[in-house]
Amino acid sequence: MDKITFINPTVEIFSQGEEVITGQIADTNAAWLSSQLIEMGFKVSRHTAVGDQLDALVKLLKEIASRSDCCLCTGGLGPTTDDLTREAVAVAFDAPLYFDETALKNIQRFFQKRGKVMAEVNRQQAFFPQGATQIDNLWGTAPAFSFKFQRCLFIFLPGVPYEMRHLFNAKIKASLMTCFSLKPQPLITIKTFGIGESELQVILNTLNLPNFVKIGFRATSDEVQVKLLFNKEVTADDKSALIQKITDKMGDRVFAVGNLENNADSLVDVVSTALEKNKQTLSAIESVSQGLFAAKCVGHTWLLSSSFYTHFETLKQQWQLETEIDLSTVAQQLAKKLQQQSGADFALVQLHDERNALSNNNHPHLLYNTLQTPQGIYQQIQTLNGSQKNKQNRAAMLGFDLLRRYLQQKKL
Amino acid sequence: MDKITFINPTVEIFSQGEEVITGQIADTNAAWLSSQLIEMGFKVSRHTAVGDQLDALVKLLKEIASRSDCCLCTGGLGPTTDDLTREAVAVAFDAPLYFDETALKNIQRFFQKRGKVMAEVNRQQAFFPQGATQIDNLWGTAPAFSFKFQRCLFIFLPGVPYEMRHLFNAKIKASLMTCFSLKPQPLITIKTFGIGESELQVILNTLNLPNFVKIGFRATSDEVQVKLLFNKEVTADDKSALIQKITDKMGDRVFAVGNLENNADSLVDVVSTALEKNKQTLSAIESVSQGLFAAKCVGHTWLLSSSFYTHFETLKQQWQLETEIDLSTVAQQLAKKLQQQSGADFALVQLHDERNALSNNNHPHLLYNTLQTPQGIYQQIQTLNGSQKNKQNRAAMLGFDLLRRYLQQKKL
Repeated sequence: MDKITFINPTVEIFSQGEEVITGQIADTNAAWLSSQLIEMGFKVSRHTAVGDQLDALVKLLKEIASRSDCCLCTGGLGPTTDDLTREAVAVAFDAPLYFDETALKNIQRFFQKRGKVMAEVNRQQAFFPQGATQIDNLWGTAPAFSFKFQRCLFIFLPGVPYEMRHLFNAKIKASLMTCFSLKPQPLITIKTFGIGESELQVILNTLNLPNFVKIGFRATSDEVQVKLLFNKEVTADDKSALIQKITDKMGDRVFAVGNLENNADSLVDVVSTALEKNKQTLSAIESVSQGLFAAKCVGHTWLLSSSFYTHFETLKQQWQLETEIDLSTVAQQLAKKLQQQSGADFALVQLHDERNALSNNNHPHLLYNTLQTPQGIYQQIQTLNGSQKNKQNRAAMLGFDLLRRYLQQKKL
Repeated sequence: MDKITFINPTVEIFSQGEEVITGQIADTNAAWLSSQLIEMGFKVSRHTAVGDQLDALVKLLKEIASRSDCCLCTGGLGPTTDDLTREAVAVAFDAPLYFDETALKNIQRFFQKRGKVMAEVNRQQAFFPQGATQIDNLWGTAPAFSFKFQRCLFIFLPGVPYEMRHLFNAKIKASLMTCFSLKPQPLITIKTFGIGESELQVILNTLNLPNFVKIGFRATSDEVQVKLLFNKEVTADDKSALIQKITDKMGDRVFAVGNLENNADSLVDVVSTALEKNKQTLSAIESVSQGLFAAKCVGHTWLLSSSFYTHFETLKQQWQLETEIDLSTVAQQLAKKLQQQSGADFALVQLHDERNALSNNNHPHLLYNTLQTPQGIYQQIQTLNGSQKNKQNRAAMLGFDLLRRYLQQKKL
């Protein structure tokens, strides 16, 4: 590849294929490539996907060439009639295809190694547009290639994620670092639980943030992340002072902080790591999360000594619960009994006000989120909203958060 | 929305957000919307994603307006400073923002119902471009809206998948069907479990399929779907004869068949519906799926009377298992005891050869998948592969499939 020295180069991701455009698969290639390129210091400006139509491909290639410094393109390099990338490059950039004997031998060798004979259709994978630079693919049959048109460097990669990722790591990444002058921006991720995006925004508004930082948010059902993207010129001291100021203000809703090199842990990982360190175990009665708390512990088997789900009536019989009293006390008594009977260090009991089935849609429930610890009982009474699945997931995550608050000695 | 009557209209998907463009998440919204729109009869021509920059958003809106009949846009409707969709529409189409009191009241009501007070930042969600048609969002705070510019009808939806999907199903789908003249091709979905895509392809290859049908596949961790897309001209008889021929050939791996109007049930739904019809119940010991079987039953609480997870040693003590004998017999004895003790109609017991922790990566396990039924014991010994999470999910689904095979009187 030629040497190019843009600073802060823009890159676009171009995905080709009917399976993407018709929604049979989500475009994980675009996401994976973007996160790699951002970390390297590129500015990703667009993702575009089109189907297997020659005119759509040609049009898009020309558009991208006119506005971007670099483009990573996946898909369309296979041996079937709907693999049109080579042809589209030839048409878009007036670069007629030529046949390459060495490329054909590489493809044949790939099949030989696997004890197979190359099918005739694979011959078309040995055609390249004039001026392309071939990139050998050790992980599949489709040879990759790069092609420079005016200011834009195109890299064409196979669409199979396994092949694409191996090729990128082994060959493309290093090439891009020599072709472009890259300076990545420091990125910090603050992970929170129990607070919404808009409340986080309100907190940040009060802090009068300096303009060397840009803020972003990302909400999932398990956490809300605050992303701090710093200017490259910021000093290490200014950076850590600001992170401290922000996390102080967000208080005990923050459960993890990470950067590009060290991803912030999930809430489940934070709890698991703390319990593993202390060699502590947990038993759970999951009347609300119905197995989902236990299911989320997979990979941390040592943490969970048992988990149980049943209907409230059965629970009442089996544990001889006094149900004339309030549910908060019932949950506390049950947690104590569970800890004694299971011998685990912690006992988590979750009951809700309708006792059995979670109602669907917007009818809210009260969750009696109760943790028997070696130091006594902890309880939070919280509201569950949304669909049954939302309530179930929320209850499971509130269980982990109650444990996390105890383990990190936060207030309840 | 206005009435428009394009035939075979084109639609583009526009995704906004730093989390998409930087690769923090794969764009599942684009995939989900595309598959819905294709089924309705749209031609999806492009997916594009850009970040939260006003100029990038404005540029893309103008581009799409110039070439497409319709555009579904997700993201950027939230209450934070990086939510710029409203402003971008105002700038791109010269449609100044106005403040809507009713929309504000709806947002306030959403918070009130959850016992919260609306933050001041949420006020910005009550601004709309002049000429927009508001679409109430019952599942979140961000009101959706449609906006027509020249030939293109834009629909702006929140980026949170749960809200977006509910809004699409409840409101957008019907509107689009009145706005556009849509003639979907008949689409049949055959859902299978326990067979891979390539094996299904081999079966289909032996059938010498007529050219009035196009075949597609979609694999998830819970099922493999075969999609049959028929020409619009095909007769009802030819269609049903071919469906019969294909499902016969695929045999008992098929668990549901659906079409555009009646979605095929999931494996969990098939099992739940059958048990509900017979008023039958189930108890489970989830040594392998670790709560995930129970978690997947949420919404069908009547089906599951109890589910239990614990370490093998505890299980052995609690149930006085004879562990000198082979694991297959241990599982059968345990299933019988569980059925007797729980009083449920069915008892599902899953043990695996390493007894406690599931190993990660590619080390395979043997699963002793065991079901005590009113007619006696059913057992399948199966292999689990992949990561811990893969093995966990596979075990849970194999549990449902064992039940399904019994309930549909299929061979084991």
